[in-house]
Amino acid sequence: MGKPYVRLDKDNAVVLLVDHQTGLLSLVRDIDPDKFKNNVLALAAAAKYFNLPTILTTSFEEGPNGPLVPELKEMFPDAPYIARPGQINAWDNEDFVKAVKATGKKQIIIAGVVTEVCVAFPTLSALEEDFDVFVITDASGTFNHLTRDAAWQRMSSAGAQLMTWFGAAGELHRDWRNDIDGLGALFSQHIPDYRNLINSYIQNTTKK
Amino acid sequence: MGKPYVRLDKDNAVVLLVDHQTGLLSLVRDIDPDKFKNNVLALAAAAKYFNLPTILTTSFEEGPNGPLVPELKEMFPDAPYIARPGQINAWDNEDFVKAVKATGKKQIIIAGVVTEVCVAFPTLSALEEDFDVFVITDASGTFNHLTRDAAWQRMSSAGAQLMTWFGAAGELHRDWRNDIDGLGALFSQHIPDYRNLINSYIQNTTKK
Amino acid sequence: MGKPYVRLDKDNAVVLLVDHQTGLLSLVRDIDPDKFKNNVLALAAAAKYFNLPTILTTSFEEGPNGPLVPELKEMFPDAPYIARPGQINAWDNEDFVKAVKATGKKQIIIAGVVTEVCVAFPTLSALEEDFDVFVITDASGTFNHLTRDAAWQRMSSAGAQLMTWFGAAGELHRDWRNDIDGLGALFSQHIPDYRNLINSYIQNTTKK
Amino acid sequence: MGKPYVRLDKDNAVVLLVDHQTGLLSLVRDIDPDKFKNNVLALAAAAKYFNLPTILTTSFEEGPNGPLVPELKEMFPDAPYIARPGQINAWDNEDFVKAVKATGKKQIIIAGVVTEVCVAFPTLSALEEDFDVFVITDASGTFNHLTRDAAWQRMSSAGAQLMTWFGAAGELHRDWRNDIDGLGALFSQHIPDYRNLINSYIQNTTKK
Amino acid sequence: MGKPYVRLDKDNAVVLLVDHQTGLLSLVRDIDPDKFKNNVLALAAAAKYFNLPTILTTSFEEGPNGPLVPELKEMFPDAPYIARPGQINAWDNEDFVKAVKATGKKQIIIAGVVTEVCVAFPTLSALEEDFDVFVITDASGTFNHLTRDAAWQRMSSAGAQLMTWFGAAGELHRDWRNDIDGLGALFSQHIPDYRNLINSYIQNTTKK
Amino acid sequence: MGKPYVRLDKDNAVVLLVDHQTGLLSLVRDIDPDKFKNNVLALAAAAKYFNLPTILTTSFEEGPNGPLVPELKEMFPDAPYIARPGQINAWDNEDFVKAVKATGKKQIIIAGVVTEVCVAFPTLSALEEDFDVFVITDASGTFNHLTRDAAWQRMSSAGAQLMTWFGAAGELHRDWRNDIDGLGALFSQHIPDYRNLINSYIQNTTKK
Amino acid sequence: MGKPYVRLDKDNAVVLLVDHQTGLLSLVRDIDPDKFKNNVLALAAAAKYFNLPTILTTSFEEGPNGPLVPELKEMFPDAPYIARPGQINAWDNEDFVKAVKATGKKQIIIAGVVTEVCVAFPTLSALEEDFDVFVITDASGTFNHLTRDAAWQRMSSAGAQLMTWFGAAGELHRDWRNDIDGLGALFSQHIPDYRNLINSYIQNTTKK
Amino acid sequence: MGKPYVRLDKDNAVVLLVDHQTGLLSLVRDIDPDKFKNNVLALAAAAKYFNLPTILTTSFEEGPNGPLVPELKEMFPDAPYIARPGQINAWDNEDFVKAVKATGKKQIIIAGVVTEVCVAFPTLSALEEDFDVFVITDASGTFNHLTRDAAWQRMSSAGAQLMTWFGAAGELHRDWRNDIDGLGALFSQHIPDYRNLINSYIQNTTKK
Repeated sequence: MGKPYVRLDKDNAVVLLVDHQTGLLSLVRDIDPDKFKNNVLALAAAAKYFNLPTILTTSFEEGPNGPLVPELKEMFPDAPYIARPGQINAWDNEDFVKAVKATGKKQIIIAGVVTEVCVAFPTLSALEEDFDVFVITDASGTFNHLTRDAAWQRMSSAGAQLMTWFGAAGELHRDWRNDIDGLGALFSQHIPDYRNLINSYIQNTTKK
Repeated sequence: MGKPYVRLDKDNAVVLLVDHQTGLLSLVRDIDPDKFKNNVLALAAAAKYFNLPTILTTSFEEGPNGPLVPELKEMFPDAPYIARPGQINAWDNEDFVKAVKATGKKQIIIAGVVTEVCVAFPTLSALEEDFDVFVITDASGTFNHLTRDAAWQRMSSAGAQLMTWFGAAGELHRDWRNDIDGLGALFSQHIPDYRNLINSYIQNTTKK
Repeated sequence: MGKPYVRLDKDNAVVLLVDHQTGLLSLVRDIDPDKFKNNVLALAAAAKYFNLPTILTTSFEEGPNGPLVPELKEMFPDAPYIARPGQINAWDNEDFVKAVKATGKKQIIIAGVVTEVCVAFPTLSALEEDFDVFVITDASGTFNHLTRDAAWQRMSSAGAQLMTWFGAAGELHRDWRNDIDGLGALFSQHIPDYRNLINSYIQNTTKK
Repeated sequence: MGKPYVRLDKDNAVVLLVDHQTGLLSLVRDIDPDKFKNNVLALAAAAKYFNLPTILTTSFEEGPNGPLVPELKEMFPDAPYIARPGQINAWDNEDFVKAVKATGKKQIIIAGVVTEVCVAFPTLSALEEDFDVFVITDASGTFNHLTRDAAWQRMSSAGAQLMTWFGAAGELHRDWRNDIDGLGALFSQHIPDYRNLINSYIQNTTKK
Repeated sequence: MGKPYVRLDKDNAVVLLVDHQTGLLSLVRDIDPDKFKNNVLALAAAAKYFNLPTILTTSFEEGPNGPLVPELKEMFPDAPYIARPGQINAWDNEDFVKAVKATGKKQIIIAGVVTEVCVAFPTLSALEEDFDVFVITDASGTFNHLTRDAAWQRMSSAGAQLMTWFGAAGELHRDWRNDIDGLGALFSQHIPDYRNLINSYIQNTTKK
Repeated sequence: MGKPYVRLDKDNAVVLLVDHQTGLLSLVRDIDPDKFKNNVLALAAAAKYFNLPTILTTSFEEGPNGPLVPELKEMFPDAPYIARPGQINAWDNEDFVKAVKATGKKQIIIAGVVTEVCVAFPTLSALEEDFDVFVITDASGTFNHLTRDAAWQRMSSAGAQLMTWFGAAGELHRDWRNDIDGLGALFSQHIPDYRNLINSYIQNTTKK
Repeated sequence: MGKPYVRLDKDNAVVLLVDHQTGLLSLVRDIDPDKFKNNVLALAAAAKYFNLPTILTTSFEEGPNGPLVPELKEMFPDAPYIARPGQINAWDNEDFVKAVKATGKKQIIIAGVVTEVCVAFPTLSALEEDFDVFVITDASGTFNHLTRDAAWQRMSSAGAQLMTWFGAAGELHRDWRNDIDGLGALFSQHIPDYRNLINSYIQNTTKK
Repeated sequence: MGKPYVRLDKDNAVVLLVDHQTGLLSLVRDIDPDKFKNNVLALAAAAKYFNLPTILTTSFEEGPNGPLVPELKEMFPDAPYIARPGQINAWDNEDFVKAVKATGKKQIIIAGVVTEVCVAFPTLSALEEDFDVFVITDASGTFNHLTRDAAWQRMSSAGAQLMTWFGAAGELHRDWRNDIDGLGALFSQHIPDYRNLINSYIQNTTKK
């Protein structure tokens, strides 16, 4: 028999956004800041669009790491928000794990800063507890390509699936007939090339 | 015992060309457009050369995604052509799967746009149903290298074999004695360096 | 005597935005689309912030080149807008040159798509008529790095000054004491790293 | 007064294609072979489109350098064709210079292999004789980026203008109203992204 | 059941620094020398900070390979120091293996020069003897990226975990509450961006 | 129990050099020609130094693929030399497989041009027959990085070990005490940085 | 007559360090942070070694730009230190220009963050007043390579000389016989490869 | 009148090889060591082939900089050899300048390590004395690309011509009829692609 395809399911997935803090973001150099900001906001917008339970966590936000980026706070005013008192691996924080388990979901979509620590550690912990983990690689950042490559290899070897926000959105949505306008708007707002296609299309089909 | 070598067999392979549409192609930035166009046409030409059953599919071609690139339509006028009404994963479309299964082949050669969605999703679905899947990486394109790397890792971890159109052609042909001129022409039309070798050779061996 | 420093002067500068059209943008591959979009909007925002007269022009916007990106249209509803009937070099269009000269400014800030045509041609024409030309390189795009390098060299050899939107904004502003909040907002909205600095700063200085 | 803009003029330009030979092309590694082949053919097609006198020359084509690429021979069956008996700088060959001067043109459009020799030497010679020289950088190739950068700098310092085939075509054409279909076809055949725009456009505007 | 997370434990880990010699370092070209030096010293500082037993070894240090870099010698004056008389794989040296086993630790943290030999060979040997091996990729260097990629793939396929000094430090520390100042100093001394965050923070919070 | 370390053994290894032909080499663009030539000759020299049985094979050497590079022919005048009449996968050629099996070795060291065909196909075939296969990645070349990455992933997933000539030489030698001068000469002739170390060393230690 | 060589002269040079502030440094992405920090400190150390008058200036250091990096403050406790109240171009600040002119030097060595603003503006101003300006490119940083290239071109076209800290040190020193140990120490502390050479040398020449 | 073409003339050129020493070579990281070694030896072989007077010089070769690479010493046993006692700029050494002037040549071909110091300084000095200077960029090396770019810009702005060993050889030879075998051998020994062309050619034209 073939290998089962563990596929994102919008009724069974929770999103974890780990340590996207204003100070820590200055450490991210494996992806350009314009693009990275866009990816993080796109993932957040996708989480909202699919109504996925979302959990925010930060590390030492009173210190140099800085506060969570305000945009995320505003988008998820009612989400569980765990300001960890010291645990580097968010999964070592009881409240965080409780919040995850309270959702009842078995699929974890995770992104964070920096990849090899804030993303990799909870990923490996969650895999150990039999969650399916989908790492949103392009909404996670770290010091350089070498570090990223090593972190991806470690997570992938342990069973995590490497994805991007666009791939995750496509897998969650399944069928455009579920809703064209909403998903189209999500893509248009976060993919300039896609927006251009739409704007050309609108002109061409309406100009007569 | 050693590991079995699952090898492309021209009597057992079907080619799936997924969403090579004029609009979607503007999203492809992990490979240069001249080279990408050449690779897609080379794969199509190889499919024809080996008489492989070929299936075309598109997503929303009436909208901004745009029509299938005309060259492909012209090369495969009689191929099954599934314009999907909404399914993002082509394998979620019954007609598409029926068309694949109707060929009776157990080896799938797949390429498409964008890699992490239009290629990866049906690849993972087909692996689940015990097909052997050969991803033609250089006739598949996506947003950037990060996305490509993540998609490749996901498909490879699930058991897909990563190939290129040239490697696939070589593996399908097996022996030059089956036909020298035809394969030579295929290579000459799609590999400038190879064409140069042939043109130098012709001059050198005929000039006396 | 030293060489005179020809310096941007907000009372003597006009901004030319040339052919930022939804179709043509799909040709731009020397800069990532997220970053390019951000740079173009940043330049436009700077033009507004400094109240610089701004002129929009397009080439064949009814055809495949597509319409001007809607954001620019919305930002400059009252700007001269020259939809050129055919001239490739905007400077060959009388209305365009008239619009430029009507501003009475002698410094031209120019950006467009694609660099070696839509930017380079009017740049060379304007230099011939003794304007000072400042090319906003990061809000101009083209096919690839080779093309960009050649275009830059041609324009620079002819006397154009190569700048970026950030450098131009700094040179136009001269002194933060003219207005801190406005320029700070411009930077914060278009430079994620800068926004992070500000958000960290706000937290750190107000939290007590 | 401003600096005169020396601008390509289709009534005053001659195209020189230097040593695009099947053997020498294997030395070109500063540009991908798919893209390079496309650029050379695009320049040749532009020369034909604008009816520019075109001169072909080769170096030692009986030996390992190999014959001129057959496509160029076929496109210009009646062009002056100077198979140089030994001169490395084509301008050292009397017949070649005579052919150039016989055209009566003062603008030289030149491309060849390899850039720092076959292009740079005649470029510097022609500049000395007061020709305007436009180097088509993307239809010229050489060993690597370092070599290219040095060759460009040498030619540019001597007064050559660095261009690309697309920029040259735009500058020669001046106005789309001179002919839309012909230039559109040239672009569509050699710029996949542009072809996609056109194909999307056709569908969108005709489908109702 | 999920896959167990084999996690660095400061009470069960030993650090092996293999062949960081002044001559061999001139072979390292897959990472810039400034950054590489910093990473090696950071790993060494982390080893000291966590009081991990550390073992130094060199290959032929009397010859062209040169002596161990003096900084490492000074940091670990009392560490076992095995100047191997000839074994290329340090694990083939009995004294070295004895020193490792004498620590009683089952987790090996390893880095060295060059990656595919001095790191990979003992890594594969230690895995065979059932140690958990954590390769500190950014404190290991070799000739070029191709070589690095091949070496990483070989080690990862054999079960080694690829990490970086920063990730290892985070995993060893577990919780900032164990000690903030010490770990903060380690990061500040080896990550310029982090030091900047701290210096900005100090000013902002104390200036009033 | 840990995973067995399958380690190169000079008494149990055979070297296969596949299709390093003068024409095919013009296709190799994933590695610079100077470096590639050096790596191939270094692998050949290592094969000779360790007295490993070596087998040469070519594909269609009378045609455009060209003859085997003369240096290899000269280094191995008595090696089995199989000029394949048509088989693309050398393992499909009976004489070739017979020659391999006649050596009685169970470890295959393989390199060739192009990687995804001439190296990958026999690698996968040999793995199926339970050989251990060590791919010398840096003496194998192909069209571009994308192709290389896909080929490496396919071979590695099937169980091949990815190495380089330097790593293989180190693993075969085991201990410098077996012979210092010979291995030193091998490295000095093929690693300029190593040669420099030795030349500096000689001067410094002898100058008194 | 040839062109005069305007050469750095330690008796006629002043060093300007502009806006190396902890916040602004997070904007620098055209050079790695480890390397950039090293270059800035190396330039500062060279300034001290050659006893060059050095002037520090910052922009808004109370705000998000952050304080001058502490290392620089400590190295130059008695240097003129101009915290500019708002001028973006340091040369627009009277105190700064006075401090420069008070040194009586006619050669300016300048570095800063970001290149196209904080370095380029005073460079262009100083050239206008007939100073010779030497830009230390590797101790200056900015957003990305595109920005850097444009800024370099602008400054170079205006007559600035582009250098690096190492080149400047060599040109200032003129002759090793002026002092071997001091310059050697400067290089050893800031160039790991050089330090390795020295350490190998010491061992090799002293070990007997 | 056009700009005079200052062209290398084998009767009027002298070659200066500056500081290609075994230690200093470890600093070169803007070009791969295999390729760099090949380029330096190719330039030396060209100098011999054209019988150009050649001058060798070194800096502190008794110390860590190491001796001149032995290959150069062997190729030019009778060349003037100036071991400079301390001057960093070789042109500051009287013996060196005397040796240059003794040749009576007015064209200087120069290469060395590192580019921005050992090449740039004597280049600028020689230009001041009205020599024509041709920098062989690919036989000169330095720390990284940033440094190289700055050094090239400085030398080019001062009037030096940037070339490569291959371009220089072509310009010196002028006409293949002066000697085919010798120049062919030079190219074949230092350009693998060229050697392959020749070997294919020989087989193809002789095999009948």
